[in-house]
Amino acid sequence: MKITVAGRSQEMRALWYEAGEVIMIDQRLLPNTFKLVRFTKCSEVAASIKDMTVRGAPAIGVAAAYGMLLATREGIDLGGAASMLKATRPTAHDLFFAVDSMLEAVRSGKDPEKAAIAYADSIVDKCRLIGEYGEPLIKDGATIMTHCNAGALATVDYGTALAPMRVARNKGKKMFVYVSETRPRLQGMKLTAYELLNEGIPHAIISDGASGHFMRKGVDIIIVGADRIAANGDFANKIGTYEKAVLAKELGVPFYTAAPISTFDFTIEDGTQIPIEDRNEEEVTVIDGHRIAPKGCRALNPSFDMTPNRYVTGIITEIGVIRPNEVGKVRRMLQ
Amino acid sequence: MKITVAGRSQEMRALWYEAGEVIMIDQRLLPNTFKLVRFTKCSEVAASIKDMTVRGAPAIGVAAAYGMLLATREGIDLGGAASMLKATRPTAHDLFFAVDSMLEAVRSGKDPEKAAIAYADSIVDKCRLIGEYGEPLIKDGATIMTHCNAGALATVDYGTALAPMRVARNKGKKMFVYVSETRPRLQGMKLTAYELLNEGIPHAIISDGASGHFMRKGVDIIIVGADRIAANGDFANKIGTYEKAVLAKELGVPFYTAAPISTFDFTIEDGTQIPIEDRNEEEVTVIDGHRIAPKGCRALNPSFDMTPNRYVTGIITEIGVIRPNEVGKVRRMLQ
Repeated sequence: MKITVAGRSQEMRALWYEAGEVIMIDQRLLPNTFKLVRFTKCSEVAASIKDMTVRGAPAIGVAAAYGMLLATREGIDLGGAASMLKATRPTAHDLFFAVDSMLEAVRSGKDPEKAAIAYADSIVDKCRLIGEYGEPLIKDGATIMTHCNAGALATVDYGTALAPMRVARNKGKKMFVYVSETRPRLQGMKLTAYELLNEGIPHAIISDGASGHFMRKGVDIIIVGADRIAANGDFANKIGTYEKAVLAKELGVPFYTAAPISTFDFTIEDGTQIPIEDRNEEEVTVIDGHRIAPKGCRALNPSFDMTPNRYVTGIITEIGVIRPNEVGKVRRMLQ
Repeated sequence: MKITVAGRSQEMRALWYEAGEVIMIDQRLLPNTFKLVRFTKCSEVAASIKDMTVRGAPAIGVAAAYGMLLATREGIDLGGAASMLKATRPTAHDLFFAVDSMLEAVRSGKDPEKAAIAYADSIVDKCRLIGEYGEPLIKDGATIMTHCNAGALATVDYGTALAPMRVARNKGKKMFVYVSETRPRLQGMKLTAYELLNEGIPHAIISDGASGHFMRKGVDIIIVGADRIAANGDFANKIGTYEKAVLAKELGVPFYTAAPISTFDFTIEDGTQIPIEDRNEEEVTVIDGHRIAPKGCRALNPSFDMTPNRYVTGIITEIGVIRPNEVGKVRRMLQ
C-alpha cells in the first residue's frame, strides 16, 4: 500500500519479517501517529494481536504465522506457542488457519522462516487476486460503501474489500467511497479513510447510522471484509455489517464480502456457530481516553455480528466471485 | 424528570421561565457537568437552539415560545424575532408551530407570558399523556430499544419515547433498555443513558451498528421520537432511525415513534418533502475536542433521516396510538 511518511509516499506492508524481527505498523496510533514496532518473541506478537496493534483477519493470520516463526527461533514449545496465539482473539478464522499451517510446515520438516514468509506472500497474492476478480464489479464512476477496515492494513497489503477499489483505480476508473466510521473503535474513520487518502481515492466519512440514508440516496455496490465465513455462506464481520446487509437487500444494492479462502471455516455449517467476541465496554464508553458515558452507566460491546447468506450477493475470493451457496462446492474442490 | 445534582435527586424540567429569565440545562455539557444557563434576550435563546444548548423537537418549540416572550419584553419587532428563531434549525416542526402559536397569541391580545408558559405546560401535559397511552405497549419484563434522546431533556419533561417507560416503571413494570449511542453527537450515550440512570431504569449503551445484532437476539419493542411527521405518516428523526425501522420490519419487532401533535406537519404530504439538516462535518471527525479522522479527510453529516410510513407500527400521541395511515384522520379532526 501507499503510505505517506514525513511527506514522502512509499510502498509498505502492514507487517513483515526481517532479520529475526517481526515489524508492524502500530495501528492503534493511526492516523495521527505513524510508528513501527518490532518484536522478537512469540508472546509479544500474541500480545500485539490481543491489544489490536495488528488487526484484520488476514493480517492477524500473518502475525500469528510470524509469531510461530519467532517461537521456533526462541526454541519454546510450539504446542504452547500455538495455544497462546489461538487464545488471543476468537472470531477471525485466519488466526487458527495460519497457526495450524505453521505447525504442519514444521512437522513436515519445512524451514519455518520460509514457511512464514511464504504464508504472508500468499495472503498478499490472494488479496491481489481478490482485487482482480472484484474490479469488474465496480463500474466507472461508481458510488461504493464499505465498513470498518478491510484494507491493506487488515491484510498485509492490497486489502480484501479495498483491493477491487485499488485495482479499479489503477485501471483508471473513477469512484467515490462512503466510509462508515465503525464504532466503537472507529477503524473506518481512522484506517480506511487513511488508506483511501494515501491512495488518492475520493471518499467521505459517515456515521454508521447514516448508512441507510446514503444507501437510499444511491449506492452502486457495498463491499465489506469478513472475519469468518461458514460452510453455508453466512459470515461474521465487524459489528454493523449485518445492518448494512439488511438495508442493502431492502434497497436493492448489491452486497459483497471479500475474503481469501483462509477465512472460510468449512467445519462450521452455519453462522450461528461462529463465536462472537465481546470486548471491553470501555471501547464504547470511553473515546480516545475520554469518558463519554455517564458515570455508572454500562455498555455492551460485541465486536462482530453475523450476516446470513441470504443477504449476500457474492463473495469475492482469490479463485473468483462465488455465490454463498457455492461455498460447499469450494469445500469439495479443496478436499 | 429526576436529576441527581450534588448527590440529591430532584424534580426538574429541561428549561423554564422565571422572573424575566429563560433558564435551561446546558445539554452540551451533560452528563459530566450539570449547569444552568440564563437568558434575557430572544437572540440568546435563538443561539441556544442553534448551538444545541437545548435540543429535541418539543423542547426546541418551548425554547422558541420563551424566546418570543423575551422578544415582547425587549420590545423588539416580533416578525423579526420570529424569523430569527425559525432560521435556527430547519427540521423540527415544533419550532415553527411554537413561534406561530406565540405570534397568534400576541395578535389576538393574549398575555405573552401566560401564552408561553401555557405552551410549555401543554407540551409537558402532552408528553404525560403520550406516556399514559404508550405504557400498555410495554409488557412487564420488556426489552426495549431507543435511539438518540427523546426524553425529558428533549421535551421539557417526561419525554416522548421515554414517557411510556417512565409510566411503565411507575406502574411497577420491569424493563431493560438498549440505548444506541447515536453518533455523531452521542445524545443516546450522553443524555438518554443519563436520564435512565437518574430514573433507575436498567439499560445498556450500545454502538449504533450493534442495533441489528441485539434486535435479532430479542427486542420486544422499539420506541423513538420524531422531529417532523408528514401527513402520510412518514417521519424525520435523528440519523440512524431509518436503519432501525428497516431492521425492525425485517425481524418483526414492533416499531413506534412517539410525538405530540405539534410535531405533525400536515402541510407536507410525504416525508420526501421534509428538509434534512446537514450539520458541520467536525461533529463526525472531532469527538469531544479531539480530531479522530486523518487530516485531509472529509465527512458528511446529515442530522436526520426519513422513515417511510410502511415501517411504522404506530405513532404514540397525546390523543392515543394511531397508525400512520390515520394521520389524515387527525388532520381532518383538527380542522
